Amino acid sequence: MRKAREESGQFLAEGLKIVTEAVELGHAPKILLYGKDADGHPLLTRAVAATEKAGGEVIEVNREILEKIAKRDNPQAVLAVFDQRFTPLQTLEPQAAKVWVGLHRVRDPGNLGTIIRTADAAGAGGVILVGDCCDPYSVEAVRATMGSIFAVPIAKAAEAEFIAWRDRWPGSVVGTLLTATVDHKSADYRRPSLVLMGNEQAGLTPELAALCDVNVKIPMRGRADSLNLSVATGIMIYAAGD
Amino acid sequence: MRKAREESGQFLAEGLKIVTEAVELGHAPKILLYGKDADGHPLLTRAVAATEKAGGEVIEVNREILEKIAKRDNPQAVLAVFDQRFTPLQTLEPQAAKVWVGLHRVRDPGNLGTIIRTADAAGAGGVILVGDCCDPYSVEAVRATMGSIFAVPIAKAAEAEFIAWRDRWPGSVVGTLLTATVDHKSADYRRPSLVLMGNEQAGLTPELAALCDVNVKIPMRGRADSLNLSVATGIMIYAAGD
Repeated sequence: MRKAREESGQFLAEGLKIVTEAVELGHAPKILLYGKDADGHPLLTRAVAATEKAGGEVIEVNREILEKIAKRDNPQAVLAVFDQRFTPLQTLEPQAAKVWVGLHRVRDPGNLGTIIRTADAAGAGGVILVGDCCDPYSVEAVRATMGSIFAVPIAKAAEAEFIAWRDRWPGSVVGTLLTATVDHKSADYRRPSLVLMGNEQAGLTPELAALCDVNVKIPMRGRADSLNLSVATGIMIYAAGD
Repeated sequence: MRKAREESGQFLAEGLKIVTEAVELGHAPKILLYGKDADGHPLLTRAVAATEKAGGEVIEVNREILEKIAKRDNPQAVLAVFDQRFTPLQTLEPQAAKVWVGLHRVRDPGNLGTIIRTADAAGAGGVILVGDCCDPYSVEAVRATMGSIFAVPIAKAAEAEFIAWRDRWPGSVVGTLLTATVDHKSADYRRPSLVLMGNEQAGLTPELAALCDVNVKIPMRGRADSLNLSVATGIMIYAAGD
């Protein structure tokens, strides 16, 4: 439930692999739940120690409870509740990476999670959620990040705040638009590039497109008139950041 | 149900937009189902005419039946059953496009559908499913194609059949591997390029990697050790085909 997540400022992550990555990146669970299947696993022992050291709670539960919390059959044997960590927009350091990602009004949590994973893989500096976006800490988004939710700085900004902040961006702000005339491969990107993507249905709004240094297109050569947002963003991150 | 789909050789597509695209591409529904919400829509009238002309069945149904068939709440007001069309491997014409896609043992129908959509958008010649893959005609895969299932030739081949056929490929067969040393952007692709991708868990097998003309990697610069398969395939299609 998004409301409960927002009020608590916490979120759920599933699986021993992801919990282990979280711990390694300095995020200790507030609550660590595990089933019999995980008992005795050396990585679980480490996660338990990290949780207890940080004052969190460790609870052994049965499979039924894991299913109820994960809301699915065949749940992972380890679930953990973490504090959300949004990075304040003003503290981002553009020069820390060659490429950054801005998403305006992204709607689909699977897309958002996949984009966070891609940003991590590409060494992007972070993901900035502009305007009313879906929640990066929903179970579906977190699952799609495959653990990258703990590795990638995520910032949130209202449109006006983003527009003011963008004025001080030291490199190229790159809008991706189906109606642009410059090919994404031939644009001149000044690093750090900030790749700005619109949402699944409507693409980038004219307002945001207008404040970019350059608008580029990924060419559509067949019958399909658009790409999946996470695919398009992946192509842009590697085009602008490499 | 995959078994029923395979026995009937048919599949389900959802939504008036997709059914209209199918009709325009010469695929008439065998069965066209529509609810009250769609009645009188000019595109529906056209789809009804195409279905009847091809000897198919047109049935008005209530919402409950649409929900049952689509297996979800808020079903589309138009559903249609089509014949599957696999293109025989031997009839593919490599020179018809600059890039083609081969997928080995792809597992996730959402990934497969998204890749078919990307192949369409990029003007790829077709998608070749090598070995035991998930079904491109499952409801989830078809949904992710956003209609491109009707536009992109899809072929199936056992490993041995693919390996024999690949010998006559006139351009570069490009394997994508995390362990490759050549960057995907600096490889020398001879068109038509055939981009070969392994599956979600294991990547490309050593056997298939060995029969490629070149193996390339998409660089991993962060903590994540891999990309989502549909994102990686999208990056490769645009790298090798443009």
